This record gives sequence, structure tokens and C-alpha cells, in this order.
Amino acid sequence: MSKQQPKFEIRDKEQLSVDLIEAQYALKDSRGKPNAKSTLILMSGIELAGKGEAVKQLREWLDPRYLRVKADAPRMLTDTEAFWQFYSEFIPTEGQIVVMFGNWYSDLLVTATHVAEPLDEARFDAYVENMRSFEQDLKNNYVDVIKVWFDLSWKSLQKRLDKIDPSEQHWHKLHGLDWRNKKQYDTLQNLRRRFTDDWYIIDGEDETQRDQFFAQYLLQNMRDLPEHESEVKGKWQQAKIPESLLKPAQEKLDKAEYKKELDKLSKRIADSMRFDKRNVVIAFEGMDAAGKGGAIKRIVKNLDPREYEIHCIGAPERFEARHPYLWRFWNRINEAEKITIFDRTWYGRVLVERVEEFASPLEWQRAYDEINRFEKDLFDSQTIVVKIWLAISKDEQEQRFKAREETPHKRFKITAEDWRNRDKWDDYLKAAADMFERTSTEYAPWHIVATDDKYTARLEVLRAILKQLKAD
Amino acid sequence: MSKQQPKFEIRDKEQLSVDLIEAQYALKDSRGKPNAKSTLILMSGIELAGKGEAVKQLREWLDPRYLRVKADAPRMLTDTEAFWQFYSEFIPTEGQIVVMFGNWYSDLLVTATHVAEPLDEARFDAYVENMRSFEQDLKNNYVDVIKVWFDLSWKSLQKRLDKIDPSEQHWHKLHGLDWRNKKQYDTLQNLRRRFTDDWYIIDGEDETQRDQFFAQYLLQNMRDLPEHESEVKGKWQQAKIPESLLKPAQEKLDKAEYKKELDKLSKRIADSMRFDKRNVVIAFEGMDAAGKGGAIKRIVKNLDPREYEIHCIGAPERFEARHPYLWRFWNRINEAEKITIFDRTWYGRVLVERVEEFASPLEWQRAYDEINRFEKDLFDSQTIVVKIWLAISKDEQEQRFKAREETPHKRFKITAEDWRNRDKWDDYLKAAADMFERTSTEYAPWHIVATDDKYTARLEVLRAILKQLKAD
Repeated sequence: MSKQQPKFEIRDKEQLSVDLIEAQYALKDSRGKPNAKSTLILMSGIELAGKGEAVKQLREWLDPRYLRVKADAPRMLTDTEAFWQFYSEFIPTEGQIVVMFGNWYSDLLVTATHVAEPLDEARFDAYVENMRSFEQDLKNNYVDVIKVWFDLSWKSLQKRLDKIDPSEQHWHKLHGLDWRNKKQYDTLQNLRRRFTDDWYIIDGEDETQRDQFFAQYLLQNMRDLPEHESEVKGKWQQAKIPESLLKPAQEKLDKAEYKKELDKLSKRIADSMRFDKRNVVIAFEGMDAAGKGGAIKRIVKNLDPREYEIHCIGAPERFEARHPYLWRFWNRINEAEKITIFDRTWYGRVLVERVEEFASPLEWQRAYDEINRFEKDLFDSQTIVVKIWLAISKDEQEQRFKAREETPHKRFKITAEDWRNRDKWDDYLKAAADMFERTSTEYAPWHIVATDDKYTARLEVLRAILKQLKAD
Repeated sequence: MSKQQPKFEIRDKEQLSVDLIEAQYALKDSRGKPNAKSTLILMSGIELAGKGEAVKQLREWLDPRYLRVKADAPRMLTDTEAFWQFYSEFIPTEGQIVVMFGNWYSDLLVTATHVAEPLDEARFDAYVENMRSFEQDLKNNYVDVIKVWFDLSWKSLQKRLDKIDPSEQHWHKLHGLDWRNKKQYDTLQNLRRRFTDDWYIIDGEDETQRDQFFAQYLLQNMRDLPEHESEVKGKWQQAKIPESLLKPAQEKLDKAEYKKELDKLSKRIADSMRFDKRNVVIAFEGMDAAGKGGAIKRIVKNLDPREYEIHCIGAPERFEARHPYLWRFWNRINEAEKITIFDRTWYGRVLVERVEEFASPLEWQRAYDEINRFEKDLFDSQTIVVKIWLAISKDEQEQRFKAREETPHKRFKITAEDWRNRDKWDDYLKAAADMFERTSTEYAPWHIVATDDKYTARLEVLRAILKQLKAD
């Protein structure tokens, strides 16, 4: 499945520059339109093959204002952070081009060649597969990822090392590799061949070709503005709506008993979250007035406000909406405290965005797998993802809405939109049913908690968390 | 000048909550309006005095969605980072409330009590003065800073330490202080009295009072929505427009000579920026077509694209505009590479925003001092700020505009807006003159470079940078 290497020829520089600028402006003008996209360029390669020079030349040919360069020294991959976490903030926004000199592949290479604990081939390949899935998800969400390997033969590399200007030498120490060592060079070449199948390989031997081919490859990408497809082939398999959603359980709990149990469980929750080495993400979804706020209060009851963060998720800000829908969650997870609670979540993609048609069928149907991969990455990097759906009956919701309207300090909790959402009750149930079926995974199962009786619900939420922390 | 301590009484909890929510919603609804503001709460105090509990209670009384809690362990102040740099990202956006448990004062306290190198009183007081100026600038830009010290007597502290739940003890190690040590307690109290003059001091003895008074103090602040004043008292002293702006020098440089000198200077630039320990910020302003792009190209000629970052500054995004105007620059500086170049800058406040009346007279007239303080903070934290104004004559600009319109790959550089700005030529000159007079400081002087002859201009820019790097 090796990538067909594109063929280019040397062109008139002036004309190439005009073409680049025009394509760049078309890309930029796509912002907010049905053919919007952004371009992420991952650059890796042999030292002194001319990555830097090629970008420098590119910056002269196009308008540098819409080209952002990110350069980070490679970092070891760890098992407490997904490979994308360090970089996700810099995923380009619609219309933008970002060049990443340091990227997940350079991290993979330093990790694989680490003297003390090199990666074995199976893990190496697993990483590559994971990275490709991530890039495909980006592409599906209108971030093109183009990958360019700057190659250089052993002989030419040695010649260039001989001639290098001393003031520039510090660059060539950055990557922690000894480029005078033939064995290391060969190892690196063998390793990179395990992932460069779908890369464009540029030979750094000839400088003009190098800069021109790189620019022309980018040009080709920029000109290819996608029509955001929205139609799906095939019929959607609607999942059966679970009984627990249609008729949430109605047991009532006695207040005294509740208080006693609550005390016990909330203490246990605080203790187990504190002493678990893993991070905890708790994700709440459910109809309006199902009691998310109340449940959250009980979770944090015995925690200090400095130990957790609560994110209440509404419609995305404009700058957020110009990124893949998961982007704003990546960023919140990246800077997260140990315990992070989401009052509404990334599942908005397959709930409100589906029901309100903010996402096309193709987009929301694709999202289940994307979300599963996202949560798997969190799970694999020592984060427990607890997902809770609070199930309320339609009657109980109506009563709570009315009560809210009548209680002054609760009035802010009820708006006209809540009543409108209620009209779409059945659509939301369907969407929820599909969501449970497709995203209840072993590593991040859904907990459906009946909430008509608030006392029972709150205890059930605590028990669900304890269960996933294996502290029950 | 000790702050008048506000007096509160215990109120009905239900009613207090209603009032808080209403005030919070009024604050939130102020976004984008002429009375918009945000509230930043800095909390410090004696351990176990109940900061955490007070915020927890607050979160129950108001809508937690618009209250963000930031909690960072105190960090030592260093001479390579201004005290606000770590926190500036979290300065609240209009309508928002942010609580900072870790803040510049807690950093100051750990720095001052550091065993090996305690701060002397003069430096301590200098920090406090600097912090107050920063907070005043925030307030002037519609971020209220309210500061609350949670106090607790030595006796009560010891009693509470005796009773503490072991699972919570890790909190009380965070601050690196031994709260069983009376001498340390006294030192801390003496130190904090050097800055708590303008703080609200809450006694943590009585829990109900503590939570209520804290909430009521916040309520008082939230209710006080500012009318953004715009009128200024007194007449503006317009600076004389320097000859160098009215009639930029016209010497011409021979191409061969230029090339030779450029080669030499751009190498020296690259070397000195690389080997200087300090960071470098290069700020460009000037009329359209004055040659900012060309000058930047020559600065980075011998640098690798990974060594610097170029920020082209246009109108702020909406989420940026909801913060103090310096906010987006704080953030760019915070994540900056060693060498950061701004194509247009924070001086937009006193140039385009003044001329186009996006900022009120009060706002832009206040900005000179704010900007000076900002640059002084950078200078004090080992950053060289080089400011360059490219001076072009009106005739030369017209010729360049026309040339741009006629050259395909330069056409993107010229828009109708450029022609419109040209109509306001004299207003911009006046604004520039005032800017030079008020912001040309010893630590960050302006360099006015005549640019009708591009060759001369580019070399002059390089010389100006070398001069400030003391490498000329």
C-alpha cells in the first residue's frame, strides 16, 4: 500500500509563488464555508536534508501570515499521555496551514531508538497504526495531514556535516542522535520505513528540487478543497431504545438512609480518587433537569475545590467550531486537573448536533468510532473515563421544569430552549440508544442511572464511579 | 491607606443565593456591552482558614458554570519570567468569574520565605508595587481584581491541625510551610501585612460568617458594573511630528554594497541572537507598504525557521476582544520561542484603535503607561524589546501601492482598506508622534528607520537590533 509518489517538475519560481498565494487565499477564504479545511504538514527526515531551508523558501513564496511553524524538540512517548496530547492545541484552524517540525513521528523515532528501553517492533507498529487512525479522523474532520520525509544519503550527510557552520551546529544536537554513526543512521532508516509508506519522500540532495517539490506538493494539497460530503450510503441501523430509558426505575429511598449512605460513599469516592494514580474523567449526559448538577455536587462533596475541575459544555465558541469537534475537549483534557467532570460532553456530536442537524448524517455516524478511539487513547494513558447517563421520565421532567420556574433561585436553570428540547424527546431517546449501543466499550462503559428519585440516583452515580475505580 | 473593611451581616441563605445568581447573570449578560467587566478573585491566607470551603459554598450558591477555579501550587518568582506570565492566560473573559487559589501573591510569599535565598524587604515591596500596578491596569481594562485574605489565629490553626482528617492532609503540605512552627507563622503574618492593606480580610474562625462574608463581598463586586468612561479631563498634549516622519531620509544605497553589508549584518544578527541568553522580541510598526515584510525576511535570513516565530497581528478575534487588549500579546509572549517577531503589535491600541476610534480617548490615553509597564516587565525578565517604526513618504507609499496592484504575486498585499488608511495619513502621523514621545523608554527605545530606499532601510533595521543587543 505504498503511496504513489507524486511527480513534479521544476517550474518558473514567480509563477509558482503566484499559484501558491492564490491557493493559500482560496484555502483561507474557505473558512466557515462548506468546503473549508486546514492543512497540517508533518515534517521529519534526516538531519541536514534541508527541512528548515524548504520551509524558509516556502515562507518567501507565500504569505507568511497564514503559515504557522511549530518546532519542538522530540519528546519520549509515555504511557501517561496520548501521543497527540502535546500537539493537539496546534492542530490548525480552518483556512490555516501549520508546519510541525516536531511531531508524533519524531517522538516515536526517539522513543524507538532510546538506548535504555527501545520499543519493540510490535509496539512501534501499534503506535503507527494508532497515529494513522488519528490522522484519518483529522482528515474526516477537515484537517488534511500531509507528511513529508526529507531524505539524504549517508554520503551526502557526512559531506554536509563536514561543511557545517559552527554557529548552526546546535540544531544538529537537538535530536539526540549521532549522525556520524553509520549504524544509527541505518537503524533510523529502517525504522522510518515502517511508517513512511504514505509519506511524500523528498531527496534533499538537490536544493532547488527539494524546495520546489515541497512547495508543489503543498500546492497540490491546498488546491484540493473538499466538498464536505454529508450523504451516507446505506440505511442507518437504529438501536432499540432500552427499557431503562423508556421507563426509568422508580424506587424511592428514605431520606435518613440516603444521608447515611451518601456520607459513606462520598468519602470513599474522595479517598479512592485521591489515592488512585490514574486521572479520572467523569462525563455526564442526560435530558435537561435530570439532575446532573445535583449529582456532581455529591461527587465533589468531600473534595477540595482545588482538586477537581468542572466543565459545563455549551455550544462551541466560533474559534472552537473552526476545529474538529473533539478539539475543545482535547484542550480541556490536556490542561486537566486530576479529576475532571464534564457537565455535557463530546457526545454532543451524536446527541444535540445529530438531533438539531448541526452535524450531517455522515459526520455524526462517523463520530462513534472517533469517540471510541479518543476514549481508548485516554484509557491507555492512565485515565479512567466514567460515563453516566441520567435517565428521567418525561413526566418527572415536566414537574421539575415547573418547579424551577416557581423557585426564584432555580429560575436560571430553565429557559425556553429547555421546553423546545422537550418537544424532541423521542429524537433524543433514539440518539441516546444509538450512542449506548456504539460507545459502551469495555474501557469506557455507559452507566444508565434512573433519576426520578434523586436520592437513589445520586447514590447510584457514586456507586458507578466506585465500580469503575474498582473501589466498590 | 489601609482598605476600609466592608461590614456584612448574616443573611437569609436562600435570598443570598438568589441575589448572587441574579448578579452573576447580570455580569454575564454584560458581555460585549458598554458596562462589561469580569471578576478575578485572588485568594490567599492561613492554612485551614477555609478558603476551599468558602469557594465550595459559593459554588453551591451560584451557577457554577460561570465560575472557574484555578488552583496552582505556589511557584518561586524568577528573574526570567514576569510574575503575571504564568497566570495571564487565565485572566477572566468578560462576564466570567475566575478564582485563583495560586496567584502572584502566594508566589511572592513562598519566594520571600525561601530558606536559601529569602527576598529582602525592598525587593518584596517592589514586587508588591508592581503587582498593584498590574491589577490597576487590569481594572482599567474592565477586569476587577478582588483580593481576599483568609486569616486564622495561631491557636485555632493548631486546634484544626489536631483534628484534620488524614486523607486531606496532603493539601496542607502543598505550600511547603510548616504550620506547626510558630516562628514561621509569625513571619508569614508579618510578610502578608506588607501587602494586605487593600485586601478584604476574613476571619476563618466562624464558618458561617466566613462563607457568607466572602459571598457577600463578591456579590457587592458583581453588582458594581462599570459605566466604561470614555471622556477625559484636560486637553491632550499632541506631540510634535518628528522630521524623520514628515520627510524620511532619501539616501540611496548601491546594490552591490548593500548585498555585502547585508550578508555581514544578517550573520551577525543570527549569531548574537543565538548566543545571547536573553529572549528577543522585535516589534514592527509603520504605514502600509513601508516594508515590514521585507525587513523581517532579512532578519531571519540566517536563522532556521525553527528558531523564531512571526506573529502577524490583525483585528482581534472575538474571544480575544473580550479580554484586556494586551491579553493576546501576553499569551503570544508566554509561549514564545526565543526570537519572536511581531508584524504589528500592541501599539495598535494607540495607532489604529485611536485613529479609527475603536478605543475611547480615555482608553488609548491610558495605554501608553500600560504598555510601558508591560515592556518594563519583559525587560526585567531578560527579554530585549526592539521597536522599529518604518517611516515611508506619502509619495513612495503611493508608488508601492500601484506597483503591488500591477504585480500578480504581490496583489494579495494590497486591499481597499490600505487605500482608506492612506486617507488618514495625518492622523496616523500624529498618533505615531505621540507614541514615540510617550513610549520611547530607556529599556525599550523606538528606532525610526527611513524606508523610501529599501536597501538602506533593511540595513538600518539590522543595525538597530544589533545596537540593542549591544553587539554593534
